[in-house]
Amino acid sequence: MSTVVIDISISLDGYITADTQTPEQPLGEGGAQLHDWIDDAVGSQLLAEATANLGAVIAGRTTYDSSLPWWGADGPTGSARRPVFVVTHDPPSDPPADGVYTFVTDGIESALDQATAAAGAETVSVMGGASICQQFLAAGLVDAIVIHLAPVLLGGGTPLFENLDGEQIELDLIDVTESASATHLRFRVTS
Amino acid sequence: MSTVVIDISISLDGYITADTQTPEQPLGEGGAQLHDWIDDAVGSQLLAEATANLGAVIAGRTTYDSSLPWWGADGPTGSARRPVFVVTHDPPSDPPADGVYTFVTDGIESALDQATAAAGAETVSVMGGASICQQFLAAGLVDAIVIHLAPVLLGGGTPLFENLDGEQIELDLIDVTESASATHLRFRVTS
Repeated sequence: MSTVVIDISISLDGYITADTQTPEQPLGEGGAQLHDWIDDAVGSQLLAEATANLGAVIAGRTTYDSSLPWWGADGPTGSARRPVFVVTHDPPSDPPADGVYTFVTDGIESALDQATAAAGAETVSVMGGASICQQFLAAGLVDAIVIHLAPVLLGGGTPLFENLDGEQIELDLIDVTESASATHLRFRVTS
Repeated sequence: MSTVVIDISISLDGYITADTQTPEQPLGEGGAQLHDWIDDAVGSQLLAEATANLGAVIAGRTTYDSSLPWWGADGPTGSARRPVFVVTHDPPSDPPADGVYTFVTDGIESALDQATAAAGAETVSVMGGASICQQFLAAGLVDAIVIHLAPVLLGGGTPLFENLDGEQIELDLIDVTESASATHLRFRVTS
Protein backbone atom coordinates (compact mmCIF):
# COMPACT_ATOMS: atom_id res chain seq x y z
CA MET A 1 0.00 0.00 0.00
CA SER A 2 1.30 3.44 -0.86
CA THR A 3 2.14 6.03 1.75
CA VAL A 4 0.31 9.31 1.17
CA VAL A 5 2.45 12.35 1.94
CA ILE A 6 1.66 16.05 1.83
CA ASP A 7 5.00 17.54 0.77
CA ILE A 8 5.01 21.32 0.56
CA SER A 9 7.00 24.50 1.19
CA ILE A 10 5.63 27.15 3.56
CA SER A 11 6.70 30.36 5.22
CA LEU A 12 6.95 30.61 9.01
CA ASP A 13 3.56 32.33 8.95
CA GLY A 14 2.05 29.40 7.08
CA TYR A 15 1.70 30.58 3.48
CA ILE A 16 2.41 28.48 0.39
CA THR A 17 2.40 31.54 -1.86
CA ALA A 18 2.85 35.26 -1.23
CA ASP A 19 0.27 37.83 -2.29
CA THR A 20 0.01 39.22 -5.83
CA GLN A 21 0.37 36.02 -7.84
CA THR A 22 0.90 36.42 -11.59
CA PRO A 23 1.65 33.92 -14.38
CA GLU A 24 5.27 35.10 -14.26
CA GLN A 25 5.38 34.87 -10.43
CA PRO A 26 3.05 32.00 -9.50
CA LEU A 27 4.39 32.09 -5.93
CA GLY A 28 3.50 35.77 -5.61
CA GLU A 29 5.58 38.84 -4.90
CA GLY A 30 8.62 37.61 -2.94
CA GLY A 31 7.27 34.07 -2.69
CA ALA A 32 9.91 32.43 -4.87
CA GLN A 33 12.17 32.13 -1.84
CA LEU A 34 9.82 29.43 -0.54
CA HIS A 35 11.54 27.16 -3.07
CA ASP A 36 15.13 28.39 -2.62
CA TRP A 37 15.94 25.20 -0.71
CA ILE A 38 15.57 23.14 -3.90
CA ASP A 39 18.87 24.54 -5.11
CA ASP A 40 21.02 24.24 -2.01
CA ALA A 41 23.14 21.16 -1.32
CA VAL A 42 21.04 19.64 1.46
CA GLY A 43 17.77 20.46 -0.25
CA SER A 44 18.72 18.99 -3.61
CA GLN A 45 19.82 15.80 -1.85
CA LEU A 46 16.47 15.61 0.01
CA LEU A 47 14.62 16.20 -3.24
CA ALA A 48 16.58 13.45 -5.01
CA GLU A 49 15.75 11.01 -2.20
CA ALA A 50 12.07 11.96 -2.24
CA THR A 51 11.88 11.59 -6.01
CA ALA A 52 13.55 8.17 -5.87
CA ASN A 53 10.71 6.91 -3.62
CA LEU A 54 7.95 8.75 -5.43
CA GLY A 55 5.32 6.76 -7.30
CA ALA A 56 2.74 9.37 -8.21
CA VAL A 57 1.79 13.00 -7.61
CA ILE A 58 -1.61 14.56 -6.89
CA ALA A 59 -2.13 18.27 -7.58
CA GLY A 60 -4.99 20.72 -7.83
CA ARG A 61 -5.94 22.51 -10.99
CA THR A 62 -4.51 25.89 -10.02
CA THR A 63 -1.19 24.28 -9.16
CA TYR A 64 -1.20 22.56 -12.56
CA ASP A 65 -2.07 25.73 -14.44
CA SER A 66 0.49 27.90 -12.72
CA SER A 67 3.26 25.27 -12.80
CA LEU A 68 2.87 23.90 -16.33
CA PRO A 69 5.19 26.49 -17.92
CA TRP A 70 7.95 25.18 -15.63
CA TRP A 71 6.99 21.50 -15.64
CA GLY A 72 6.30 20.93 -19.33
CA ALA A 73 5.19 17.49 -20.52
CA ASP A 74 7.47 15.68 -18.03
CA GLY A 75 5.81 17.10 -14.90
CA PRO A 76 7.37 18.11 -11.57
CA THR A 77 9.75 15.12 -11.47
CA GLY A 78 11.42 15.99 -14.78
CA SER A 79 13.05 13.07 -16.55
CA ALA A 80 11.72 10.67 -13.88
CA ARG A 81 8.30 11.36 -15.45
CA ARG A 82 6.22 10.24 -12.49
CA PRO A 83 2.46 10.41 -13.27
CA VAL A 84 0.54 13.45 -12.04
CA PHE A 85 -3.16 13.22 -11.21
CA VAL A 86 -4.80 16.64 -11.45
CA VAL A 87 -8.06 17.10 -9.57
CA THR A 88 -10.33 19.40 -11.56
CA HIS A 89 -13.95 19.95 -12.53
CA ASP A 90 -12.96 21.08 -15.99
CA PRO A 91 -10.05 19.32 -17.76
CA PRO A 92 -7.92 21.56 -19.96
CA SER A 93 -8.52 21.30 -23.71
CA ASP A 94 -4.85 21.50 -24.59
CA PRO A 95 -2.67 19.49 -22.21
CA PRO A 96 0.89 18.92 -23.47
CA ALA A 97 1.34 16.08 -25.95
CA ASP A 98 2.88 12.97 -24.39
CA GLY A 99 2.45 14.54 -20.92
CA VAL A 100 2.43 12.71 -17.59
CA TYR A 101 -0.93 14.23 -16.62
CA THR A 102 -4.25 12.52 -15.93
CA PHE A 103 -7.23 14.77 -15.20
CA VAL A 104 -9.58 13.46 -12.53
CA THR A 105 -13.05 14.97 -12.44
CA ASP A 106 -14.69 12.86 -9.73
CA GLY A 107 -12.90 14.03 -6.60
CA ILE A 108 -9.94 13.40 -4.36
CA GLU A 109 -10.75 9.78 -3.49
CA SER A 110 -10.83 8.82 -7.15
CA ALA A 111 -7.56 10.70 -7.68
CA LEU A 112 -6.07 8.79 -4.75
CA ASP A 113 -7.27 5.44 -6.09
CA GLN A 114 -5.68 6.12 -9.46
CA ALA A 115 -2.48 7.50 -7.93
CA THR A 116 -2.19 4.52 -5.58
CA ALA A 117 -2.65 2.08 -8.44
CA ALA A 118 0.09 3.86 -10.38
CA ALA A 119 2.44 4.16 -7.40
CA GLY A 120 2.43 0.54 -6.28
CA ALA A 121 4.56 0.34 -3.15
CA GLU A 122 5.96 3.83 -3.65
CA THR A 123 4.88 7.15 -2.20
CA VAL A 124 1.93 9.23 -3.37
CA SER A 125 2.81 12.91 -2.93
CA VAL A 126 0.08 15.50 -2.48
CA MET A 127 1.81 18.69 -3.59
CA GLY A 128 -0.98 21.24 -3.30
CA GLY A 129 -2.61 23.61 -3.58
CA ALA A 130 -3.93 24.40 -0.16
CA SER A 131 -7.48 23.27 -0.91
CA ILE A 132 -6.37 19.82 -2.06
CA CYS A 133 -4.18 19.42 1.05
CA GLN A 134 -7.06 20.49 3.30
CA GLN A 135 -9.44 18.05 1.61
CA PHE A 136 -6.98 15.17 2.06
CA LEU A 137 -6.42 16.05 5.73
CA ALA A 138 -10.12 16.44 6.47
CA ALA A 139 -10.82 13.06 4.87
CA GLY A 140 -8.16 11.35 7.00
CA LEU A 141 -6.23 10.18 3.93
CA VAL A 142 -2.78 11.52 4.86
CA ASP A 143 -0.05 9.34 6.40
CA ALA A 144 2.71 11.93 6.68
CA ILE A 145 3.37 15.65 6.26
CA VAL A 146 6.70 16.99 5.02
CA ILE A 147 7.11 20.72 5.56
CA HIS A 148 9.90 22.75 4.01
CA LEU A 149 9.84 25.78 6.31
CA ALA A 150 11.34 28.87 4.71
CA PRO A 151 12.78 31.49 7.08
CA VAL A 152 10.45 34.35 6.18
CA LEU A 153 7.20 35.94 7.29
CA LEU A 154 5.34 36.69 4.05
CA GLY A 155 2.60 38.67 5.79
CA GLY A 156 -0.11 37.36 3.47
CA GLY A 157 -0.79 34.96 0.62
CA THR A 158 -2.30 31.49 0.40
CA PRO A 159 -2.53 29.84 3.84
CA LEU A 160 -1.86 26.09 3.85
CA PHE A 161 -3.80 25.13 6.94
CA GLU A 162 -7.23 26.63 7.19
CA ASN A 163 -10.71 25.21 6.76
CA LEU A 164 -9.80 22.22 8.92
CA ASP A 165 -12.96 23.07 10.85
CA GLY A 166 -11.63 22.58 14.35
CA GLU A 167 -10.60 19.00 13.81
CA GLN A 168 -7.41 18.31 15.74
CA ILE A 169 -4.86 16.09 14.05
CA GLU A 170 -2.07 14.64 16.16
CA LEU A 171 1.39 14.29 14.65
CA ASP A 172 4.71 12.68 15.58
CA LEU A 173 7.90 14.33 14.47
CA ILE A 174 9.94 11.84 12.42
CA ASP A 175 12.97 14.03 11.82
CA VAL A 176 14.28 17.52 11.15
CA THR A 177 16.94 18.47 8.60
CA GLU A 178 18.44 21.97 8.45
CA SER A 179 19.63 23.50 5.25
CA ALA A 180 20.71 26.99 4.32
CA SER A 181 17.32 27.94 2.91
CA ALA A 182 14.76 25.92 4.89
CA THR A 183 14.10 23.67 7.84
CA HIS A 184 12.75 20.33 6.65
CA LEU A 185 10.29 18.74 9.10
CA ARG A 186 8.78 15.30 8.61
CA PHE A 187 5.70 14.33 10.64
CA ARG A 188 3.72 11.11 10.85
CA VAL A 189 -0.06 11.58 11.18
CA THR A 190 -1.15 9.60 14.23
CA SER A 191 -4.85 10.44 14.48
CA MET B 1 21.16 47.11 24.77
CA SER B 2 18.63 44.36 25.33
CA THR B 3 17.73 41.81 22.69
CA VAL B 4 13.98 41.66 22.06
CA VAL B 5 12.73 38.12 21.48
CA ILE B 6 9.28 36.81 20.66
CA ASP B 7 9.27 33.44 22.44
CA ILE B 8 6.09 31.45 21.96
CA SER B 9 4.59 27.99 21.45
CA ILE B 10 2.52 27.29 18.34
CA SER B 11 0.89 24.38 16.55
CA LEU B 12 2.00 23.36 13.05
CA ASP B 13 -1.02 25.24 11.73
CA GLY B 14 0.09 28.41 13.51
CA TYR B 15 -2.20 28.70 16.55
CA ILE B 16 -1.10 29.78 20.02
CA THR B 17 -4.35 28.55 21.57
CA ALA B 18 -7.01 26.07 20.46
CA ASP B 19 -10.67 27.02 20.17
CA THR B 20 -13.06 27.12 23.13
CA GLN B 21 -10.88 28.90 25.68
CA THR B 22 -12.16 28.94 29.27
CA PRO B 23 -10.65 30.15 32.56
CA GLU B 24 -9.89 26.50 33.38
CA GLN B 25 -8.42 25.84 29.91
CA PRO B 26 -6.85 29.14 28.81
CA LEU B 27 -5.16 27.35 25.90
CA GLY B 28 -8.51 26.05 24.66
CA GLU B 29 -9.82 22.56 24.11
CA GLY B 30 -6.77 20.36 23.46
CA GLY B 31 -4.42 23.34 23.44
CA ALA B 32 -2.52 22.43 26.60
CA GLN B 33 -0.25 20.17 24.55
CA LEU B 34 1.29 23.33 23.07
CA HIS B 35 3.16 23.58 26.38
CA ASP B 36 3.97 19.89 26.88
CA TRP B 37 7.59 20.60 25.92
CA ILE B 38 8.11 22.57 29.14
CA ASP B 39 8.12 19.31 31.07
CA ASP B 40 10.35 17.14 28.91
CA ALA B 41 14.10 16.92 29.49
CA VAL B 42 15.26 18.96 26.51
CA GLY B 43 12.51 21.53 26.92
CA SER B 44 13.10 22.15 30.61
CA GLN B 45 16.82 22.63 29.87
CA LEU B 46 15.99 25.16 27.13
CA LEU B 47 13.61 26.94 29.46
CA ALA B 48 16.22 27.12 32.21
CA GLU B 49 18.75 28.62 29.78
CA ALA B 50 16.23 31.16 28.49
CA THR B 51 15.24 32.18 32.01
CA ALA B 52 18.90 32.61 33.00
CA ASN B 53 19.32 35.23 30.25
CA LEU B 54 15.93 36.85 30.73
CA GLY B 55 15.74 40.42 31.98
CA ALA B 56 12.08 41.29 31.57
CA VAL B 57 8.85 40.04 30.05
CA ILE B 58 6.19 41.86 28.02
CA ALA B 59 2.68 40.43 27.84
CA GLY B 60 -0.77 41.51 26.73
CA ARG B 61 -3.71 41.91 29.04
CA THR B 62 -5.51 38.73 27.99
CA THR B 63 -2.35 36.71 28.53
CA TYR B 64 -2.01 38.24 31.99
CA ASP B 65 -5.63 37.59 32.92
CA SER B 66 -5.66 34.00 31.74
CA SER B 67 -2.23 33.14 33.14
CA LEU B 68 -2.41 34.83 36.56
CA PRO B 69 -3.94 31.79 38.30
CA TRP B 70 -0.84 29.82 37.28
CA TRP B 71 1.73 32.60 37.65
CA GLY B 72 0.70 34.13 40.97
CA ALA B 73 2.63 37.10 42.35
CA ASP B 74 5.98 35.75 41.07
CA GLY B 75 5.02 35.82 37.38
CA PRO B 76 6.00 33.40 34.60
CA THR B 77 9.60 33.02 35.78
CA GLY B 78 8.61 31.76 39.22
CA SER B 79 11.21 32.28 41.92
CA ALA B 80 13.43 34.19 39.46
CA ARG B 81 10.75 36.92 39.71
CA ARG B 82 11.64 38.73 36.48
CA PRO B 83 9.51 41.86 35.99
CA VAL B 84 6.49 41.61 33.71
CA PHE B 85 5.20 44.64 31.79
CA VAL B 86 1.55 44.19 30.90
CA VAL B 87 0.22 46.30 28.02
CA THR B 88 -3.37 47.29 28.75
CA HIS B 89 -5.82 50.13 28.39
CA ASP B 90 -7.38 49.32 31.74
CA PRO B 91 -5.12 48.20 34.63
CA PRO B 92 -6.68 45.62 36.94
CA SER B 93 -7.94 46.92 40.28
CA ASP B 94 -6.67 43.95 42.24
CA PRO B 95 -3.22 42.80 41.08
CA PRO B 96 -1.48 40.40 43.48
CA ALA B 97 0.27 41.98 46.45
CA ASP B 98 4.04 42.11 46.03
CA GLY B 99 3.64 41.01 42.39
CA VAL B 100 6.19 41.43 39.60
CA TYR B 101 3.69 43.22 37.37
CA THR B 102 3.76 46.74 35.96
CA PHE B 103 0.74 47.87 33.95
CA VAL B 104 1.58 50.03 30.94
CA THR B 105 -1.26 52.07 29.48
CA ASP B 106 0.57 54.06 26.82
CA GLY B 107 1.43 51.39 24.27
CA ILE B 108 4.05 48.89 23.23
CA GLU B 109 6.91 51.34 22.79
CA SER B 110 6.51 52.57 26.35
CA ALA B 111 6.36 48.98 27.56
CA LEU B 112 9.54 48.26 25.64
CA ASP B 113 11.31 51.30 27.09
CA GLN B 114 10.43 50.22 30.62
CA ALA B 115 11.29 46.57 29.98
CA THR B 116 14.62 47.49 28.41
CA ALA B 117 15.50 49.71 31.36
CA ALA B 118 14.71 46.84 33.72
CA ALA B 119 16.51 44.21 31.65
CA GLY B 120 19.84 45.97 31.23
CA ALA B 121 22.00 43.74 29.02
CA GLU B 122 19.62 40.82 29.32
CA THR B 123 16.83 39.66 27.01
CA VAL B 124 13.37 41.19 26.81
CA SER B 125 10.90 38.41 26.03
CA VAL B 126 7.61 39.19 24.28
CA MET B 127 5.44 36.26 25.30
CA GLY B 128 2.13 37.13 23.66
CA GLY B 129 -0.67 37.22 23.00
CA ALA B 130 -0.87 37.29 19.26
CA SER B 131 -1.83 40.97 19.03
CA ILE B 132 1.18 42.09 21.07
CA CYS B 133 3.52 39.96 18.95
CA GLN B 134 2.00 41.36 15.74
CA GLN B 135 2.35 44.93 17.01
CA PHE B 136 6.02 44.37 17.88
CA LEU B 137 6.74 42.78 14.48
CA ALA B 138 4.91 45.49 12.54
CA ALA B 139 6.87 48.16 14.43
CA GLY B 140 10.19 46.51 13.59
CA LEU B 141 11.07 46.10 17.27
CA VAL B 142 11.89 42.37 17.25
CA ASP B 143 15.45 41.01 17.06
CA ALA B 144 14.69 37.29 17.22
CA ILE B 145 11.80 34.82 17.15
CA VAL B 146 11.87 31.58 19.13
CA ILE B 147 9.15 29.14 18.08
CA HIS B 148 8.28 26.03 20.05
CA LEU B 149 6.48 24.05 17.35
CA ALA B 150 4.12 21.44 18.77
CA PRO B 151 3.38 18.43 16.54
CA VAL B 152 -0.35 18.98 16.14
CA LEU B 153 -2.83 20.60 13.78
CA LEU B 154 -5.34 22.32 16.07
CA GLY B 155 -7.71 23.20 13.23
CA GLY B 156 -8.62 26.56 14.78
CA GLY B 157 -7.86 28.92 17.64
CA THR B 158 -5.79 32.07 17.99
CA PRO B 159 -3.43 32.52 15.02
CA LEU B 160 -0.03 33.98 15.86
CA PHE B 161 0.85 35.55 12.54
CA GLU B 162 -1.91 37.52 10.97
CA ASN B 163 -2.52 41.22 10.50
CA LEU B 164 1.07 41.69 9.32
CA ASP B 165 -0.49 43.49 6.36
CA GLY B 166 1.62 42.02 3.61
CA GLU B 167 4.88 43.20 5.10
CA GLN B 168 7.56 40.61 4.42
CA ILE B 169 10.06 40.00 7.20
CA GLU B 170 13.23 38.10 6.38
CA LEU B 171 14.66 35.71 8.95
CA ASP B 172 17.83 33.66 9.42
CA LEU B 173 17.61 30.33 11.17
CA ILE B 174 19.96 30.35 14.18
CA ASP B 175 19.39 26.78 15.30
CA VAL B 176 16.91 23.94 15.71
CA THR B 177 16.56 21.70 18.76
CA GLU B 178 14.34 18.63 18.75
CA SER B 179 12.60 17.41 21.85
CA ALA B 180 9.93 14.80 22.43
CA SER B 181 7.13 17.34 22.50
CA ALA B 182 8.21 20.18 20.21
CA THR B 183 10.70 21.39 17.65
CA HIS B 184 12.45 24.51 18.91
CA LEU B 185 13.39 26.95 16.15
CA ARG B 186 15.37 30.14 16.74
CA PHE B 187 15.39 32.83 14.05
CA ARG B 188 17.17 36.17 13.78
CA VAL B 189 15.12 38.97 12.21
CA THR B 190 17.22 40.38 9.38
CA SER B 191 14.88 42.95 7.80
